[in-house]
Amino acid sequence: MHYSAININEKLKKFSDVWSPKIIAKMNNYHFKLVKIKGDFIWHKHNETDEVFIVIEGEMKIEFKDGLVKIKKGEMFVVPKCTEHRTFSDHECNIMLVEPVGTINTGDAINGFTAVDNVWV
Amino acid sequence: MHYSAININEKLKKFSDVWSPKIIAKMNNYHFKLVKIKGDFIWHKHNETDEVFIVIEGEMKIEFKDGLVKIKKGEMFVVPKCTEHRTFSDHECNIMLVEPVGTINTGDAINGFTAVDNVWV
Repeated sequence: MHYSAININEKLKKFSDVWSPKIIAKMNNYHFKLVKIKGDFIWHKHNETDEVFIVIEGEMKIEFKDGLVKIKKGEMFVVPKCTEHRTFSDHECNIMLVEPVGTINTGDAINGFTAVDNVWV
Repeated sequence: MHYSAININEKLKKFSDVWSPKIIAKMNNYHFKLVKIKGDFIWHKHNETDEVFIVIEGEMKIEFKDGLVKIKKGEMFVVPKCTEHRTFSDHECNIMLVEPVGTINTGDAINGFTAVDNVWV
């Protein structure tokens, strides 16, 4: 049987839209997604799950109601569930997310940033 | 409140033993672990879970009963549950694993390679 690895940078070359996560792998009931971000996202929280951010290229920030974290290439961060947060980045930043199947990118805040779910790249 | 990112390379500098996964983050009931490998691991399978390998540095291979996959820096692979596999690497390779809390590195094969669980770095 033929097995092949998933190349993260090759997957990133396949799309250019921002704030629109694309699935690249499934483990149990979790998805690994790539997303490109630039500018400011909206405040939201995920009531059912923690959310993992792994920065592949660039630098991003996550603002909380009581603080801020800067995450750069080669770094990761886990946003605890039920924690209001807002992601932003001055320049384009490429991120890998890990979250349960069906997680909505805007969590409890459905608006123009809410992306179509279940898109693979 | 003070928030800080987890720097993967800084964590890798904190240990040198091989085949001994160290936890760096927890998301829901999953652990993100770093492991250094060199040489040959044993055949085993995980009956309860898929297993994610993300290569941070170097190159590794996973042999299956019916094939083989090569995974290099910047690539990832999901080993499906119940799938017998054997990891190996000619040179030291640094990997991030994602698996449920309590997953034993040797799966159903307890032997000299079985690492102590729940070690954080």
